[in-house]
Amino acid sequence: MIIAIGSIALDTTRTPFKTVKDVLGGSATYFSLASSFFYKTGLVGVVGDDFPKEYHQILNDRLDLTGLKTEKGKTFRFDSSFSYDLSKRTTNKTELNVFEKFDPILPDNYKNAEYVYLGNIDPEQQLKVLNQINKPKLTVCDTIELWIKTKRDKLIEVMSRVDGVVLNDDEVRLLCKTSNLVNGAKMILNWGAKFVIIKKGEHGAIMFSPTTIFPSPGYPLEEVVDTTGAGDSFAGGFMGHLAHSEKINDKTIKEAVIYGNVMGSFAVEDFSINKLLTLTMDDINSRYKKYREMVTF
Amino acid sequence: MIIAIGSIALDTTRTPFKTVKDVLGGSATYFSLASSFFYKTGLVGVVGDDFPKEYHQILNDRLDLTGLKTEKGKTFRFDSSFSYDLSKRTTNKTELNVFEKFDPILPDNYKNAEYVYLGNIDPEQQLKVLNQINKPKLTVCDTIELWIKTKRDKLIEVMSRVDGVVLNDDEVRLLCKTSNLVNGAKMILNWGAKFVIIKKGEHGAIMFSPTTIFPSPGYPLEEVVDTTGAGDSFAGGFMGHLAHSEKINDKTIKEAVIYGNVMGSFAVEDFSINKLLTLTMDDINSRYKKYREMVTF
Repeated sequence: MIIAIGSIALDTTRTPFKTVKDVLGGSATYFSLASSFFYKTGLVGVVGDDFPKEYHQILNDRLDLTGLKTEKGKTFRFDSSFSYDLSKRTTNKTELNVFEKFDPILPDNYKNAEYVYLGNIDPEQQLKVLNQINKPKLTVCDTIELWIKTKRDKLIEVMSRVDGVVLNDDEVRLLCKTSNLVNGAKMILNWGAKFVIIKKGEHGAIMFSPTTIFPSPGYPLEEVVDTTGAGDSFAGGFMGHLAHSEKINDKTIKEAVIYGNVMGSFAVEDFSINKLLTLTMDDINSRYKKYREMVTF
Repeated sequence: MIIAIGSIALDTTRTPFKTVKDVLGGSATYFSLASSFFYKTGLVGVVGDDFPKEYHQILNDRLDLTGLKTEKGKTFRFDSSFSYDLSKRTTNKTELNVFEKFDPILPDNYKNAEYVYLGNIDPEQQLKVLNQINKPKLTVCDTIELWIKTKRDKLIEVMSRVDGVVLNDDEVRLLCKTSNLVNGAKMILNWGAKFVIIKKGEHGAIMFSPTTIFPSPGYPLEEVVDTTGAGDSFAGGFMGHLAHSEKINDKTIKEAVIYGNVMGSFAVEDFSINKLLTLTMDDINSRYKKYREMVTF
């Protein structure tokens, strides 16, 4: 099983074209819905007792929810606005609510999970999760600006203990205090990670290992509706493919990066997780194939 | 022969690390030095009588200079500063000098040129060049923000008459009044161009034709010194490869985009045209090969 630990949110997303309120979001939500196409996925997180039943049903249809807690109080809420070309997001309001005191205690049957994704939670909680896991085949972490600014040392400790680090370009620049992404990736590899993936939104992603650099362009889209969750969907497709293919080597990691690009490209085609809900594995493989044909020269 | 029409400049470039003054630059300079590795190239432009002899010698060693005029007065000068990560440039001063009255009259033997590159000159002058050319195999144009803002209609006329358009992403957004690059490219194709290449700096380039989309990542570099001329060097590598391979089809155009990325990546590794001067065709082919290995999955 893959287990994903992170936020489950009710998002209010304002684009120049439309505003949606209290829709299903959160890093662990996007990740786990994306990875669930490839491999059984369990979601570890917390929601409030206001969490809509239909959202719970959506998650329950696709995921193992043994690790999902419902606490008294309100669900984590995130309100943001996009610039006219969707390239910049401004946070209007963050209400942590029940997520503030989230304590990631794993159900017993999750302690033997083979694949562990540490989403955007406090690095101290990420370490706590790592300490509960027995012998995972693959551990991957992400983070957010807040933890880079407030808990950099703990974050570096996390990165020294996981197999893979998945970050976006701005996060790498901030974390590594360099404008050059190649140098940033090398620094993270030196801390101990076996590979680093830098996500660059519409520009794709670059994977670095001590022996390989694998740059990949983004999948070109004519219509982008809402870029929320693109990076988490990328990570879900990435880890999902690795779990599904069982072997973890340069070849499967590169393929996984492309599946990441593919899942990210689907995620942005509609608000919230809507597009992910309509997909089949055939759609995913067909876009993967199209991507391969497109970039071949 | 390839002929390149555009600016030849004395650049003052200020980066956070170093400032260089009155170094050899200009769009036609970068283009033609890059293309000259692949195919005989003639430079069409104007310099002042203050143009340093050693720069003239550099050009003369590598290019056909029948179309280069020296006029009484000062050479075009361009002074700019880069932000700390070299991603943003601010223009401090532009002195057009002799370039202001540049009239692109082609030498007779250039009128049968097979390959014509219309650099950053006034679209009315670009049309004037097209009217002097007999039966070119391939015509490609570039432009700058100034002409998009002041002579959009003339520019669209140019784009309806050339085979290929090479622009950067910001220029496409401005010209096509859309934030989406795929839609922008389609609009330009509708005006009549056979292919459009959108350059995205460190993020590579995307080629569009009515039947193909070819996204390509940038070549990852650990050290970037000065990004001046990267786009022109890209265009030079692109057109140079097409001229060298003689056939113009989807396959050679895709390869040419990669040679474009390769030449752009070399150009930024030193100030001015310095890196281009040290290269051999072996260096270029070896980076092309490395690029191909890197992106294959």
